[in-house]
Amino acid sequence: MTIQENNTGIQAQVMDMEAKNQRFEDDLEEMLELLENSQYISARNLLLKYNEVDIGEMLEEVLDEAGVEKTIILFRMLPKNVSVEVFSYLPGDDQVKVINGITDREISYIMEEMNFDDKIDVLEELPANIVDKILDQTPREERKLINTFLKYPEDSAGSLMTPDYISLQETMTVEEALDHIKRQGMTSETVYTCYVKHGGRELKGIVSLSSLVTAEKDTKVSDLMHTDYVYLNVYDDQEDVAEAFKKYGFLAIPVVDNENRLVGIVTVDDVMDVIEEETTEDIERMAGVMNDDSDVEYLDIGVFRHVKNRLPWLLFMTVTLMITGTLISQFEAVLSQVIVLVAYLPLLMGTGGNTGTQAATLVIRGLSVDEIDLKDSLKVLWKEFRVSLILGLVLSVFNFAKIMLIDGEPMMIAMTVSLSMIIVVTFAKILGGMLPMLAKKVGVDPALMATPMISSITDMFSSCIYLLMASILLGVAI
Amino acid sequence: MTIQENNTGIQAQVMDMEAKNQRFEDDLEEMLELLENSQYISARNLLLKYNEVDIGEMLEEVLDEAGVEKTIILFRMLPKNVSVEVFSYLPGDDQVKVINGITDREISYIMEEMNFDDKIDVLEELPANIVDKILDQTPREERKLINTFLKYPEDSAGSLMTPDYISLQETMTVEEALDHIKRQGMTSETVYTCYVKHGGRELKGIVSLSSLVTAEKDTKVSDLMHTDYVYLNVYDDQEDVAEAFKKYGFLAIPVVDNENRLVGIVTVDDVMDVIEEETTEDIERMAGVMNDDSDVEYLDIGVFRHVKNRLPWLLFMTVTLMITGTLISQFEAVLSQVIVLVAYLPLLMGTGGNTGTQAATLVIRGLSVDEIDLKDSLKVLWKEFRVSLILGLVLSVFNFAKIMLIDGEPMMIAMTVSLSMIIVVTFAKILGGMLPMLAKKVGVDPALMATPMISSITDMFSSCIYLLMASILLGVAI
Repeated sequence: MTIQENNTGIQAQVMDMEAKNQRFEDDLEEMLELLENSQYISARNLLLKYNEVDIGEMLEEVLDEAGVEKTIILFRMLPKNVSVEVFSYLPGDDQVKVINGITDREISYIMEEMNFDDKIDVLEELPANIVDKILDQTPREERKLINTFLKYPEDSAGSLMTPDYISLQETMTVEEALDHIKRQGMTSETVYTCYVKHGGRELKGIVSLSSLVTAEKDTKVSDLMHTDYVYLNVYDDQEDVAEAFKKYGFLAIPVVDNENRLVGIVTVDDVMDVIEEETTEDIERMAGVMNDDSDVEYLDIGVFRHVKNRLPWLLFMTVTLMITGTLISQFEAVLSQVIVLVAYLPLLMGTGGNTGTQAATLVIRGLSVDEIDLKDSLKVLWKEFRVSLILGLVLSVFNFAKIMLIDGEPMMIAMTVSLSMIIVVTFAKILGGMLPMLAKKVGVDPALMATPMISSITDMFSSCIYLLMASILLGVAI
Repeated sequence: MTIQENNTGIQAQVMDMEAKNQRFEDDLEEMLELLENSQYISARNLLLKYNEVDIGEMLEEVLDEAGVEKTIILFRMLPKNVSVEVFSYLPGDDQVKVINGITDREISYIMEEMNFDDKIDVLEELPANIVDKILDQTPREERKLINTFLKYPEDSAGSLMTPDYISLQETMTVEEALDHIKRQGMTSETVYTCYVKHGGRELKGIVSLSSLVTAEKDTKVSDLMHTDYVYLNVYDDQEDVAEAFKKYGFLAIPVVDNENRLVGIVTVDDVMDVIEEETTEDIERMAGVMNDDSDVEYLDIGVFRHVKNRLPWLLFMTVTLMITGTLISQFEAVLSQVIVLVAYLPLLMGTGGNTGTQAATLVIRGLSVDEIDLKDSLKVLWKEFRVSLILGLVLSVFNFAKIMLIDGEPMMIAMTVSLSMIIVVTFAKILGGMLPMLAKKVGVDPALMATPMISSITDMFSSCIYLLMASILLGVAI
């Protein structure tokens, strides 16, 4: 998607966010009613009150509510230039639905007019037979380029970049450079940083449009150019791409291949989507959901796919809970003699899981936003140790008082629970703090060490500590 | 922070990410050794091999490892223009440490040279007496402006914006407009969209630098200008600001006050930080950590502050776990007769918590990235219901087989656990799916409905269902 085209083509009205959302909902309702009665002209006119981003959003809703046929009719009634933009804003699976509903000629038109990076995104989503059909109608040179781009791994810098960038020569004057830019006529965000190449395709330096615009006409590009730029490799993971943008705050970063030749640029607007996707993946993993395609929306994921994403960790946790159960059953002698102990078992297991999850979540997030490094391990350990002692103490006292005063149980029961509590909290916090670091160390995603893993381990530990403590303090043989 | 200044002032070497990180670590080690031996000149030269962003990062490490005094000495040895940039990249608390260590004259220099939006960020972090001192040395006009900006709520569009934008007149030609931009000489990301004002300060339209650069010289600004732009209000929450950028993909969005007067613009680079901060807040809340200042780094938060952030939810969960314990103790008769039941209690409680958390996490994330709306409640309910039936069935069969075949327990025990399992999973998934929607409906942050809340409720429910089921199936009176 190109930023500038948004800024130019949009029909957004000046109004504040809340009112805007309300109007959107109202118009959507009206639209669905119009479609119900097949009043397509009115529906289209209603749609055209919005900018392309919003039209895309509305068509998404229409697709869900009024079905694919009516959506296609409406889509085909949009002005051609609008339809291209709207198409590129639709989610991947909706794009496939639209492609399947329109004619080959319409497909070619959309493909021709779309920005190169959007085109690659669409082609990556489409079934192979449709891709072949589209490529057949594409000029040879572009087909070659498309094929090269389609070969980059899905989550690489190569798959995010666009080959639409401005190339300048270092011998150009500012006036010549601006003329060159004017002739290229690109009105998109890709124009704001220009790239100076050396010999064949090797990147020599970068020059910003703002420095060209503010410099004197006869200044040489070589005087404005910066040779100390940040760049990415086509095979860099999109997570690293996002990191680079977050760190340096650039609008675009050049991408080079293994021979250091400039092959494209990644722009900040495409990185926003990557950040969202990567965060979603992290959050889902932290809750034990393994979704290998996190840009598909929740409601668009089928029931079996949801089951498939959730079952692996649930089974893992079930097995560990079974082991915990077996461990507990080793203490049947203690439990059957002092049955009241059972009432405090959930308390200890639950608190272990909760405190461990807190620590793990903080450390996982810290690692992912680069606030915490592997070399901080000891600092994290020391911090969690002190935090856990205080929290353990507070919770112990609280529980001791409750068990003695409210439950009226003997002091030895209260003592058993309270002492176990301190040990469990300390263990859980340290485990929660260290496990994500260890995962990172051995190259496993730290996010996998959140709730499921931590609570599985602390459950086993808490129940054993508690029942062991009971058998010691209460003098019951195991 | 300004994007363009990065692009121009940086010293980054061309090399790939991994090698770069390794070099950074090596150089940091060398630097610390140099500082240890008070070889400041060599340390400074080593530092100056890097760009301002990286220098900032290195100083952060130096501050932690070598102490504030050596850091200040090093900071004061940086070239003046570099030091301003580096300062603006330091985290808030490190900025305060630096400010406290340098002279008033150095402070004034940094303040004068810093971009307006960075200046506001710094002033917001500083103690009141230092702010007053700085403001005393600021020209009256700017002081007024600063005071206005400081008055905007901390997480509002007003606190994110900068007043440094390009104003054009609609009667200008492209040539005049470009001349005007050149005279202003702003080489920052704020130049890429220009703003056309009407009468006093009312925003009339926007025009992009790329369209000015590619248009003919005598074209009127009014012909290129777009009056259908997206804008924000100074009091819009930063979450809405981030949403707008994510949705429309703009580089900058104008901000107006309640009288619709243009007061500043927000640029995409500042929004990247907001997105990170908001996500961190969500993730932390989902794990029961209440941190009201999530831009302070994990390691910089004191032990007591960590305790304060984590204790409230832990206490809440402790209370609910106590209630669960009390509920369980109502079933002492059942438990003491069939003590083996205790071994499966963690299994049911744990599975309830785990499955509920999965559903809640997916729905919370869906709500926060606008994939799920309140009106989708029934769809979410129906999806979670079907998913839970399948998952419940799979887990039941798995458990049934394990209890019968491996544990060798009577069939009625296996039946009790399996039947309870289906009910617990279904309940937990539906609760996990619906609770965040309900929270959103009543205006509570859905993120608060994740692990702590869900597992508290499912724990109570699971233990009751299980023991009730046991007393019915096994025919034991409660």
